[in-house]
Amino acid sequence: MTVKYVYAFSEGNAGMKELMGGKGANLAEMTKIGINVPPGFTITTEACNQFQGTGEILDGTWKQVLKAIKKLETQTDKGLGDSKNPLLLSVRSGAPVSMPGMMDTVLNLGLNTETVKGMIEKTNNERFVYDSYRRFIHMFSNVVLGLPHSSFDDILDKSKADAGVELDSELNADQLKKLVDDYKVIVKNSGLEWPDDPIMQLRLSIEAVFKSWDLKRARVYREANGISHNLGTAVNVQSMVFGNMGQNSGTGVTFSRNPSTGENKIYGEYLMNAQGEDVVAGIRTPLPISDMEKALPDIYKKFWDIVDRCEKHYGDMQDMEFTIEEGELYILQTRTGKRTASAAIKIAVDMVIEGIIPREEALMRIEPSALNQLLHKRLDLSGGEKEAAIGLPASPGAAAGEAVFNADEAQRMKEEEGKDVILVSPETSPEDIHGMIASEGILTSRGGMTSHAAVVARGMGKPCICGCGDLKIGKGECYIDDLVIKEGDWVTLDGTTGKVYKGQVPTIDPEMTSEFKVFMNWADSISRMTVKTNAEVPSDVQVAKDFGAEGIGLARTEHMFFGEDRLPWMRRMVLASTPEERQKALDQLLPMQRQDFEEIFTIMDGLPVIIRLLDPPLHEFLPKDSDEIKELSKALDIPVKTIEEAIENQHEFNPMLGFRGCRLGIMYPEINAMQARAIFEAGLAVQEKGVKPIIQVEIPLIGKLEEFRMINNIIKDVACDMNIAGKLDYQIGTMIEVPRAALTADEIAVEVDFMSFGTNDLTQMTCGLSRDDAGKFLGKYVEKEIYDRDPFESIDQTGVGLLMKICVDKARKIKPDMEIGICGEHGGEPESVKFCHRIGINDVSCSPYRVPIAKLAAAQAVIEERMK
Amino acid sequence: MTVKYVYAFSEGNAGMKELMGGKGANLAEMTKIGINVPPGFTITTEACNQFQGTGEILDGTWKQVLKAIKKLETQTDKGLGDSKNPLLLSVRSGAPVSMPGMMDTVLNLGLNTETVKGMIEKTNNERFVYDSYRRFIHMFSNVVLGLPHSSFDDILDKSKADAGVELDSELNADQLKKLVDDYKVIVKNSGLEWPDDPIMQLRLSIEAVFKSWDLKRARVYREANGISHNLGTAVNVQSMVFGNMGQNSGTGVTFSRNPSTGENKIYGEYLMNAQGEDVVAGIRTPLPISDMEKALPDIYKKFWDIVDRCEKHYGDMQDMEFTIEEGELYILQTRTGKRTASAAIKIAVDMVIEGIIPREEALMRIEPSALNQLLHKRLDLSGGEKEAAIGLPASPGAAAGEAVFNADEAQRMKEEEGKDVILVSPETSPEDIHGMIASEGILTSRGGMTSHAAVVARGMGKPCICGCGDLKIGKGECYIDDLVIKEGDWVTLDGTTGKVYKGQVPTIDPEMTSEFKVFMNWADSISRMTVKTNAEVPSDVQVAKDFGAEGIGLARTEHMFFGEDRLPWMRRMVLASTPEERQKALDQLLPMQRQDFEEIFTIMDGLPVIIRLLDPPLHEFLPKDSDEIKELSKALDIPVKTIEEAIENQHEFNPMLGFRGCRLGIMYPEINAMQARAIFEAGLAVQEKGVKPIIQVEIPLIGKLEEFRMINNIIKDVACDMNIAGKLDYQIGTMIEVPRAALTADEIAVEVDFMSFGTNDLTQMTCGLSRDDAGKFLGKYVEKEIYDRDPFESIDQTGVGLLMKICVDKARKIKPDMEIGICGEHGGEPESVKFCHRIGINDVSCSPYRVPIAKLAAAQAVIEERMK
Repeated sequence: MTVKYVYAFSEGNAGMKELMGGKGANLAEMTKIGINVPPGFTITTEACNQFQGTGEILDGTWKQVLKAIKKLETQTDKGLGDSKNPLLLSVRSGAPVSMPGMMDTVLNLGLNTETVKGMIEKTNNERFVYDSYRRFIHMFSNVVLGLPHSSFDDILDKSKADAGVELDSELNADQLKKLVDDYKVIVKNSGLEWPDDPIMQLRLSIEAVFKSWDLKRARVYREANGISHNLGTAVNVQSMVFGNMGQNSGTGVTFSRNPSTGENKIYGEYLMNAQGEDVVAGIRTPLPISDMEKALPDIYKKFWDIVDRCEKHYGDMQDMEFTIEEGELYILQTRTGKRTASAAIKIAVDMVIEGIIPREEALMRIEPSALNQLLHKRLDLSGGEKEAAIGLPASPGAAAGEAVFNADEAQRMKEEEGKDVILVSPETSPEDIHGMIASEGILTSRGGMTSHAAVVARGMGKPCICGCGDLKIGKGECYIDDLVIKEGDWVTLDGTTGKVYKGQVPTIDPEMTSEFKVFMNWADSISRMTVKTNAEVPSDVQVAKDFGAEGIGLARTEHMFFGEDRLPWMRRMVLASTPEERQKALDQLLPMQRQDFEEIFTIMDGLPVIIRLLDPPLHEFLPKDSDEIKELSKALDIPVKTIEEAIENQHEFNPMLGFRGCRLGIMYPEINAMQARAIFEAGLAVQEKGVKPIIQVEIPLIGKLEEFRMINNIIKDVACDMNIAGKLDYQIGTMIEVPRAALTADEIAVEVDFMSFGTNDLTQMTCGLSRDDAGKFLGKYVEKEIYDRDPFESIDQTGVGLLMKICVDKARKIKPDMEIGICGEHGGEPESVKFCHRIGINDVSCSPYRVPIAKLAAAQAVIEERMK
Repeated sequence: MTVKYVYAFSEGNAGMKELMGGKGANLAEMTKIGINVPPGFTITTEACNQFQGTGEILDGTWKQVLKAIKKLETQTDKGLGDSKNPLLLSVRSGAPVSMPGMMDTVLNLGLNTETVKGMIEKTNNERFVYDSYRRFIHMFSNVVLGLPHSSFDDILDKSKADAGVELDSELNADQLKKLVDDYKVIVKNSGLEWPDDPIMQLRLSIEAVFKSWDLKRARVYREANGISHNLGTAVNVQSMVFGNMGQNSGTGVTFSRNPSTGENKIYGEYLMNAQGEDVVAGIRTPLPISDMEKALPDIYKKFWDIVDRCEKHYGDMQDMEFTIEEGELYILQTRTGKRTASAAIKIAVDMVIEGIIPREEALMRIEPSALNQLLHKRLDLSGGEKEAAIGLPASPGAAAGEAVFNADEAQRMKEEEGKDVILVSPETSPEDIHGMIASEGILTSRGGMTSHAAVVARGMGKPCICGCGDLKIGKGECYIDDLVIKEGDWVTLDGTTGKVYKGQVPTIDPEMTSEFKVFMNWADSISRMTVKTNAEVPSDVQVAKDFGAEGIGLARTEHMFFGEDRLPWMRRMVLASTPEERQKALDQLLPMQRQDFEEIFTIMDGLPVIIRLLDPPLHEFLPKDSDEIKELSKALDIPVKTIEEAIENQHEFNPMLGFRGCRLGIMYPEINAMQARAIFEAGLAVQEKGVKPIIQVEIPLIGKLEEFRMINNIIKDVACDMNIAGKLDYQIGTMIEVPRAALTADEIAVEVDFMSFGTNDLTQMTCGLSRDDAGKFLGKYVEKEIYDRDPFESIDQTGVGLLMKICVDKARKIKPDMEIGICGEHGGEPESVKFCHRIGINDVSCSPYRVPIAKLAAAQAVIEERMK
């Protein structure tokens, strides 16, 4: 049996991509469903692979090609090389995986001195024919004969200069005819033979496309994109159609629905007596596709029908190219159309309602991170603004404001002058919170995606760009190369792309459509995981709840201690030299902390709230510069020297692994006792008001069961002392962020009520990477593909993820139904969320603005699981 | 069948500890092997447990006691309460586990007005009898009747005052008789009934001993020592013997061999006509046991024979108490004798040679860490010196020297003035190396057992005390409370105990005996693991080899860059702003580094040498204070500002998890390339001289296989470039110190030649503990038993150890025979070494002075495994 190397479009279908390439299979599919595609055939990837071995087209293959040509001649009623009614062909590559621009194409094949005459006679358009001919000679000479582009371009330029015109299209028929002659001289002078015989032209063109598979640029592209060198490319030979054959010819591009809004109405443009490139070149203004209804009612009706058929057939919005040749409509290409995020949601929801796709399909259509576009402002770059610098896209959204270089000034400008400001700083610390709150966005020169600025900004839903290395910050001004930005100068940030603009770029507000709500409801109904939020500031908690957060997965109590009314007492607590002094300061903090919890419980009425006890090293609460120390000394009536000694004493080499988390409570039990009391008192207080608090107390940085046990006892002692049994329920659980805790999860599970992965710290410790310092080399790591992605952005599944799986498996052995969550930054990153689902985690928690993203990812995880 | 609650000594043996308690079983054992023990019987722990339930001695038990008394009367030919020939008894507690001083004892039981007379008649020693009687009344009143000691002590004091004497022993018979009468008045006035009937005395005494099991002090002691409350105590009722009955009576204590030297010669003291307490009280000078040979040849011969028999029977050197009562020798106690480390070795080796114990038993007899005593100087504290402060015993040994407060001055005083100095500093850094080399010992106020000072000092075998919190260091002097130590003042350190002494305390040199060598040979012949050393300075390498190190498990190349000739070039390398500048500095370092390796290979001729590539953060090489920066600026002709910026730029928040290890080589491949070249050039050079280098290159801080692969390629490129294939063999392996690497050991194993656990860093990351900072709370952790031991001292087996086991198991699945070692500080800690053996590690590596300790632990691990 002979192997079949050539398939007419009518013999293939969309499932044959591997053999026919993407383009060939798609042309075949359209042909199959009866859409008028210019006829043609595909030479398979197998033929290409065979060619790579031998460097020649086998006789058998060539015979099949000739047979296909014969069939094509019959079908089109034209003849290859026929001087009266010549068949012109396009010869295009088409690999199983798209490799845009990497391989070669020959158009207008079949033209020679004879057929040119026939074409002129037939079209009565000498200019068109000579234009096609000179393009063919140039293309063929370059692709097949290997002559450089420059030889042809030089002559073309000279020809335009001689004619006194600027554009190719301004050359008239005679000038083009002269150009053809000049082109032929180049070929002749090269000593290469010019094939006038269209069959020879075809054979050489096919060989050239096969050869282009093995060109260096194609190999490099495949290596960079992980595409196998063994796939091979198919070759598509298709009869040419022309939209520029007269007033009953034309060409156009259309989307089956509006790609900006998603509206179910075809959307596109067309131009009569024109070729595709004319539409693109913008010399003539194309008409909206709706005009065609009046101008060409029959064709329009036919076209509408095809668009509808294609959309239904592919089950998605289509981006289509068509040509009308002398009144006959041909579809040249149909593919899934690109669209904005809001259009994507509307289209997906509409298609479910229209019965075109099931809900699951709709949910899978949207890339979760694309929701960022919907939830945040974005820039209107129609003015063509160019960025001044690029940093890390640390928190999405767009904002413009006047640059300000410290937190106090930011607050002053906002509050006293009502100005929009952008806080620009080398990095931020918890003490800058008030300035961050006052700012529209934050720009830092240091720090990564999980730096303080990034984490806090994401929590607040404010745009933030971090680690902008080109930015140098001086006194009251900053520099980007030669550009100086002074305090008060306008700056615009696009936190979604990391681009920084000088000046004020207009922004576009997000909108929450009814389709978005429907879509998110579908996601909720499918997903198995609960999505909570990391928030503690009441306004953030409210935002998260509005976004559908089903509770708080992480309320960081330390963030509550930086307020103006609290920090002095917190510092007194840290500087206390006796337990009594410490207790005195804690007594002052207790009612404030209780107030915080009351607000949170009230907003999250009936939903679970995980409150993490004090976590950071105490030195984070101490002042850093000498002015502040002096001020503090005065305020607290403690000698400067004592404060300096305390700061020196609190200094740590590796604070991440130092005196923090549960270790604070083990050394100073009264801190956790105060917090437990504040939580319980708040719980009782809101209960009085008819609110239902669901309390989960979380102990940070547990490495050993014994640590948990000690803090657990402190909390239970407070509960016992307050006699809340039977009056107020609560659970006590632990963060899992120390590798040791994950490894010994079976021991720890025995005594905890719930677990929650702190994947930021877990990643730091498991991978030995300090997130504050890794910026120096992590870029290089990702670039060199040591890590596929920044492990602080997306969970390192094979390393950190393995440890998480060990933990979940061990814990579930002891308590099969225990709540195990994740509250690191990864909780809002789609791949990480899906991974959590796969290893059996129940809860993910993320910053408020990421809640919808996590929800969609959680739903997709279920669907992906079902598809397996 | 009646349960047997009472066992005569002749009915029991050493295996019955649980039932008869330790003392009872031991008395029974001696009785069994025919040693003359004062006869008696034991009431079992079961009877005690029964008593705890009911508060009463059951009738059945009491009947057995009475029967045993009858038998005892027959055996001793005396009668309890017999006015002519009274039997006197001791009633003592004896639990299965020793609880020294926790429970009660009654002696001289059986005395009353009648028997006192009989005793006087029999002994013709009124003073002795009344002295015994007043002691009995006091003891019984206190223990059984619960009257306070003070009542009796007050009267005794008054009686001595009246008599005008100072010591009890100076009271004469009449005065003691009066005292007895006064004591009886106290009892009478208390309203309690005094039992004159010896049987009643016995019953009440037994009950009192049972009750003492449940006293609060005993419960607390058991809780603190993890002893079960359910064990119960036995009661031993034994006939009293007296060494003070005249000139043919006596008492003594002896060791079967010399406990200081191990010499096989009995060693002890005795005193005629005396009681045990007289020997202790030091009023009369006891005679050496050898004098007995002449004075009492028959008894001496008999005694010698018993000592020999006991030693052989128990198979260990015995510590024995004996009494001679009227010419008859009784053994009151025999137990394993305490001894010095050198005696322990000699005794163990001698006993193997004498055929008393097998080699394995000898090896198990020595606590590995006890070898520290043999390898280091120790203090001669016979002058009674008292320490001024206590710090962490960071590196064992003793040293005295003049205090000096910086490294340069230490070097100057040593080199120019030939003085012995002790470097006193808040902490040390690699830049202080020259000062540490010049010093006899190091004392720091900060840092823990694994701080820089500790690690380096252990490597050098120099005493070091770290984290001495009471020490405050000022300019040119330091303070311990009110004590001022100025530069030049003498200080003495005991690194084995952590004690700091003001002044010069004499030291005793270690000695390496022939027995020690034999002993270590036995260890080597049994152990399955190879013991290597962590060393890179040639003198340290030599010491380690002399101690039997079988190779180098870790040569830290960074230690080599702090030399005076190197540091400037290293700094130039760190400060380089282009690869060319960096290369220029590296070119200067290359020959120096090669020289280092040549020396190491030469000493370790034919033994494997693992060389770890540069590991620490580069900022460790930069100067810290402004003077140094200025100096460097001058020397390198680089502006101060540039250096300051570089330092600022290199600053890290958590350097432990920062830019170090393999990350250096990934960013600056030329560093590792230089090191690889130096290693290979050194290998070729020494080979020329007939030395056999066995080269293992080790890549630090690997977390992912891809990291290893990149550095591996750098090394292999150098090897390829040098064309060493076939000329020089080498292996390339990795440290396992990042948890991620351990978790993915199966992936990593595929491409590495060997693995070595860096347990210091692995512990830091797995437990989330910075060893430089943990000092603040780790003490409390150990105190609160969160960790049983400091995890930087002894491997945290359930956490870090579990991760190591996962790693070994995964790696072995891929390469069953691959070398897996450990080179953290734990490699010299006995429990950790044994753990390594159990999880299948092949190699342990430790600082030179710990090599023998590791070897012994490795041997014991094998023996313990066989015993299972």
